[in-house]
Amino acid sequence: MSQFRVVGQRIPKYDGADKVTGKAVYADDLRLPMLLHGKILRTSLPHARILNIDVSRALRLSGVKAVITGEDTPKRPFGFGNDNWPLKVGKVRCVGDEVAAVAAVSENVAQEAISLIKVDYDPLPSVFDPEEAMLPGAPLVHENRQSNISMTWRFSEGDVEQALCEADVVIQERFSTQYVSACPIEPHTTVASFDSSGYLTVWSGVHFATMYRKAIAECLGIPWSRIRVIQPTIGGSFGSKIDIDPLDFICVLLARVTGRPVKIAFTREEEFVAARPRQPMIFYVRAGARRDGSLLARDVRIVSDNGAYNAWGGHALIGALHAITSLYQVPHVSFQGDVVYTNKPYGGAMRGFGNPQATFAVESTMDMLADRLGLDPVEFRLRNANHPGEVTPQGQRVTSCGMVESIRAASDRIDRRLAGRPAARGWGLACYTNVAGGARIYRSDGCGALVRIDDGGGVTLITGATDIGQGSDTVLAQIVAEELGVPMGDIHVVNTDTSVKPWDVGSHASRTTFIAGKAALLAAGKARARLLDEAASKFEARPDDLEIRDARIYVRGSPEKSVTVAQVARGALLRRGGQIIMGEAFYDPDTYEMDQNLRGQLTAAVSFGSQAAEVEVDTETGGVRVKKVVAAHDVGRAINPMASEGQVEGGVLMGTGFGTCEEMDVKDGTIRNANFMDYRIPTSIDPPEMEVVLVETIDPEGPYGAKGIGETGLIPTAAAIANAVWRATGVRVKDLPVTPEKVLRGLEEQDLV
Amino acid sequence: MSQFRVVGQRIPKYDGADKVTGKAVYADDLRLPMLLHGKILRTSLPHARILNIDVSRALRLSGVKAVITGEDTPKRPFGFGNDNWPLKVGKVRCVGDEVAAVAAVSENVAQEAISLIKVDYDPLPSVFDPEEAMLPGAPLVHENRQSNISMTWRFSEGDVEQALCEADVVIQERFSTQYVSACPIEPHTTVASFDSSGYLTVWSGVHFATMYRKAIAECLGIPWSRIRVIQPTIGGSFGSKIDIDPLDFICVLLARVTGRPVKIAFTREEEFVAARPRQPMIFYVRAGARRDGSLLARDVRIVSDNGAYNAWGGHALIGALHAITSLYQVPHVSFQGDVVYTNKPYGGAMRGFGNPQATFAVESTMDMLADRLGLDPVEFRLRNANHPGEVTPQGQRVTSCGMVESIRAASDRIDRRLAGRPAARGWGLACYTNVAGGARIYRSDGCGALVRIDDGGGVTLITGATDIGQGSDTVLAQIVAEELGVPMGDIHVVNTDTSVKPWDVGSHASRTTFIAGKAALLAAGKARARLLDEAASKFEARPDDLEIRDARIYVRGSPEKSVTVAQVARGALLRRGGQIIMGEAFYDPDTYEMDQNLRGQLTAAVSFGSQAAEVEVDTETGGVRVKKVVAAHDVGRAINPMASEGQVEGGVLMGTGFGTCEEMDVKDGTIRNANFMDYRIPTSIDPPEMEVVLVETIDPEGPYGAKGIGETGLIPTAAAIANAVWRATGVRVKDLPVTPEKVLRGLEEQDLV
Repeated sequence: MSQFRVVGQRIPKYDGADKVTGKAVYADDLRLPMLLHGKILRTSLPHARILNIDVSRALRLSGVKAVITGEDTPKRPFGFGNDNWPLKVGKVRCVGDEVAAVAAVSENVAQEAISLIKVDYDPLPSVFDPEEAMLPGAPLVHENRQSNISMTWRFSEGDVEQALCEADVVIQERFSTQYVSACPIEPHTTVASFDSSGYLTVWSGVHFATMYRKAIAECLGIPWSRIRVIQPTIGGSFGSKIDIDPLDFICVLLARVTGRPVKIAFTREEEFVAARPRQPMIFYVRAGARRDGSLLARDVRIVSDNGAYNAWGGHALIGALHAITSLYQVPHVSFQGDVVYTNKPYGGAMRGFGNPQATFAVESTMDMLADRLGLDPVEFRLRNANHPGEVTPQGQRVTSCGMVESIRAASDRIDRRLAGRPAARGWGLACYTNVAGGARIYRSDGCGALVRIDDGGGVTLITGATDIGQGSDTVLAQIVAEELGVPMGDIHVVNTDTSVKPWDVGSHASRTTFIAGKAALLAAGKARARLLDEAASKFEARPDDLEIRDARIYVRGSPEKSVTVAQVARGALLRRGGQIIMGEAFYDPDTYEMDQNLRGQLTAAVSFGSQAAEVEVDTETGGVRVKKVVAAHDVGRAINPMASEGQVEGGVLMGTGFGTCEEMDVKDGTIRNANFMDYRIPTSIDPPEMEVVLVETIDPEGPYGAKGIGETGLIPTAAAIANAVWRATGVRVKDLPVTPEKVLRGLEEQDLV
Repeated sequence: MSQFRVVGQRIPKYDGADKVTGKAVYADDLRLPMLLHGKILRTSLPHARILNIDVSRALRLSGVKAVITGEDTPKRPFGFGNDNWPLKVGKVRCVGDEVAAVAAVSENVAQEAISLIKVDYDPLPSVFDPEEAMLPGAPLVHENRQSNISMTWRFSEGDVEQALCEADVVIQERFSTQYVSACPIEPHTTVASFDSSGYLTVWSGVHFATMYRKAIAECLGIPWSRIRVIQPTIGGSFGSKIDIDPLDFICVLLARVTGRPVKIAFTREEEFVAARPRQPMIFYVRAGARRDGSLLARDVRIVSDNGAYNAWGGHALIGALHAITSLYQVPHVSFQGDVVYTNKPYGGAMRGFGNPQATFAVESTMDMLADRLGLDPVEFRLRNANHPGEVTPQGQRVTSCGMVESIRAASDRIDRRLAGRPAARGWGLACYTNVAGGARIYRSDGCGALVRIDDGGGVTLITGATDIGQGSDTVLAQIVAEELGVPMGDIHVVNTDTSVKPWDVGSHASRTTFIAGKAALLAAGKARARLLDEAASKFEARPDDLEIRDARIYVRGSPEKSVTVAQVARGALLRRGGQIIMGEAFYDPDTYEMDQNLRGQLTAAVSFGSQAAEVEVDTETGGVRVKKVVAAHDVGRAINPMASEGQVEGGVLMGTGFGTCEEMDVKDGTIRNANFMDYRIPTSIDPPEMEVVLVETIDPEGPYGAKGIGETGLIPTAAAIANAVWRATGVRVKDLPVTPEKVLRGLEEQDLV
């Protein structure tokens, strides 16, 4: 029997059925009295000077309440690069740039008004290729800058050049990855309303609510203390809703100018055009190993095609760097990543945050090295696997680590039989390492939690953490239920209102179970202590002599002495000199920042895992069918195995899309497949057979030993598929996705040889 | 200069403008996905057996999702008398009783379905007159009871009979008061929704949210911990929304049976027919005084016409008892109050809660005694006024008391000139005493509060207390702003969600400023202490050396050393080992219950005041015009004089209606004026000139010395008007309201003499 009652249980996400049946309330479901609808005019030019904006006809349209342009905004830039504006001033830098916005009594009127705005442009030379953009003389996306390189990340440990000289085998390759859209089912939607005193409430499915509030305050000059952010049900994000978007500022500006609530809901096309995609990356990899199979060195240069502005996307190289320095034991590592402006869609955060791209490059290289060394790819990986207790070249301490178990579990469970044309079969393996305990992207990576037990025995967990669909509310409730000894049904999670919830940096870096879970555990522990103190005085016992089971407090050894949690909480509250039974905690893990050399502790806990893919390739068409994926993931402890498996499965499906079909077709800066007919994404009928193996390593710091699992399913999937396609066909696709065209071209090249 | 910066300021209610401009979101504004609309079938018979309910035609109507009757309910009774049911089972006891209910896709469809339900009744003999209802052999409203007397309240102190023998003057009179509807602008509206896990959320403008939740749990058998009550903006209540109504249960039942959210919104007619009115009372008063003007004895017997069920209305006799025992110093008091069932609308809580009725009887008697003694009515009242430090016959300690000042202020400011027919002029005085610090109607009369300072310096007060329009949110924010030294704009009050807010018994008994204000003060004090501890360590000073002004913390005597509250809160939160700057408190005043003899401390603080009315009576028509009311009220301290005055003014207007025109015309159990055309209520164009004098006595227990002021404006108004009409015309109307018909009849009787 498990030592736990609730932790480790397979409990469906509490909000799952509401989402499926249509009961869940999303931002677009909000109806407020006097609500106006906003629309944004976007440019169709990749680079142009704005000469004139004529809004006069739009303003005259009946039902239009406001038309604003960049001239009406505070003109303070926002974003990591301080290079973006809510409405663009002076020039546009990519297709989709926001030029003007309308608030009207209906969406239709707003859309018609948008069509009546006339903008005169002076087109400018554009640059679309990031490597061209780095060259001297390239058109400057930001004219006030010396070059289009917005950021450069460098890291070095050991002596890579010397090690590559000493290596018995060296691989040198170029890999590249594509634009991918996050494609949440719910497009971005924001509602903003000022009350009559000027207090602003914004409803938005953002999952960085505290930073979002700060960004609105700073960009729009609204006192920070007079902004409330409410997060309705979030219909998926995958990172795309972590950033503040011009949409959010525009919605607030329209609400301010009209004095009425305003809603802006992206169309699906806007979701493709204007939401942050995963940024394409180009990798130049050199990797060397000794004949005995030990990795010696890895040198990676990345060109990140970051598009017109520097949002979260520029930092995705930190995720890439983690994989490059810490996936397998490699003593000599060097890294340079250039984040480059182009006149194209600008990247953001997306599940994996640079890591899936880097893992594709690293794991393709690993297979190529194994092949050159004549080693079994499983054995080669086991030979170089990470282990608990190690410190990576970057300085990351590995606390718990189930990499060896994961490799064994994945490779043991995959069908390794091969077959040749015309239905070629193959299998491939890829591992990952990922942050699993947050990453300090702000002063604090912490989360606050309050646990309160009410007069009816209801337990409210007020947590800063946001559930973006990953099921964290259910997992946090399990932690509180476990700690308090009450059933899940007694727990209610509240976390959608910045006026109510304590601080949390946001849902990112697979941190929620680890950090918010730990905060919830600590807060519940304090509430439990107060509860037991109350009960102890009633029974004239010591708190240590008491235990809580099924919402009832017992005196150990005296089963006849018991009282319900509700009775104790109510009694404490409603006696003279009443006390609220509650506990509060703030938990910020002891992860230190990296120094300016990118050296240090990136995260409080690292996850590891391994995935094996089995593919069948139609050698007539080049079509790749992913038949099965075995995903073995070190989760520390699975608080909710069903939720953990769900996360992995969703990630695998998303990784399958990344690996085989998803690609934003951007030509001359314009997305040509901004709809679900032309943008191919795996749906619920497409998944391969999946087998998820949860490896439990019981992390010393995580709550009940848990680590984060939100992103990992995606990370190695494309690499495993590419490796499997290679093993099936001999075609090594180095440019994601592995499309039929590329495979067929590879097969044709084989035939030419 | 005031010692305070925010306390004592005239600050408009923060939500006032939103209510006026239409931005406020009421329950009826809620739109939820898949929302259904509910309607209730009400009987038009005052007393009948239900023989059969045929819902088959209603069920067949397209768009109807459910039809329920009493047979579909858990059949557990609710209410103080355990005598009421969500949907009536077996028989109906008053017009408007709920017999069946429908949920449908629109209000229109629901209404049509209601019209298709056929109910067969067997009419039963009814009883409408409460004194007849008390007689043996009267038809029993509740057939399982021995009589129609549902409760009897008795109190005695001293020897009334002996005192009346010794008195130089004795008055013996019968007074009576009418049914009055609370007439909130927003009719009762409830929305209920179960999520897929069975967790229930109810949106309702109730102001007893914790008790409401408990009532739903107990009556419908839903676990208490799985019910969340959210209170949208409340469009007035005046007590009528304190009670749970069959509507609320029915809404939840419809939501449960349909699995969809259901809204039921009362029509205005339903608001008259089905919401709780002020119960009519009959008073038999005997009062005696000595020739020197000292009151000796008061004996009052009340018959309270409580209607068909025992809701809060039965307890209104406690409010009446308070006035009878404690208004003026009267050594010998006896009291009996019978709460009687009739086949009529059943009473609830309404502003003043029995006190306006009793004050009408007591103050009419006071004028009659003064007249008989040949004493100036002002001097007679001053002679017998209450004083601080006294203990009333009931055992109520009087802490602060500004009665003498109030009588002087009111009488000094009223025009005492008289004039005769045809435009008779007169003035009248009436005093009151009222609970001003809660009243223990449950185990605790307390309120919890949390004060949290966030990373942007925003301060959230999470309080249990409900703002029903009285402006308590603004007043509570002032208290927190004062204590923390921050501007009002930094304070945000959160208090509309039982999952978030701490326990509070509800908005009743003029307790919110006193009790919730004290809880907010204590919680803010704790947050302030934590803030100063943080700042002190920064400045290497002692917390005592610091002060907070304008959201900035200064070292006393070193004005160059300062830091903002936001910086300190953010610094504490976001440093390693971060701390949330917050404080929590629960305050339950030391008011002891009355014993079974109704003796003891009813409230933590008592308010007193005096109102003078000037009237002009058209002796041709009997029409009474209230020209001016001077209202002098002991508020302890006016935290917000504008809000205090507003409360008094609203009360005076409501009292003017009670005194002169408002009356539900109930004939044979049917309300014949259930609309605003026929039910005459003073509107914004009708108020008399008003002069409000706030008497500040600085209560030793109230926050900053404040006492409650929510009900007092209403309490003595009708009595002052009746006394003024008597002084103008010689006509003593003993039966409210003082209508033209009654005045004219009195004048005609004078002419006959």
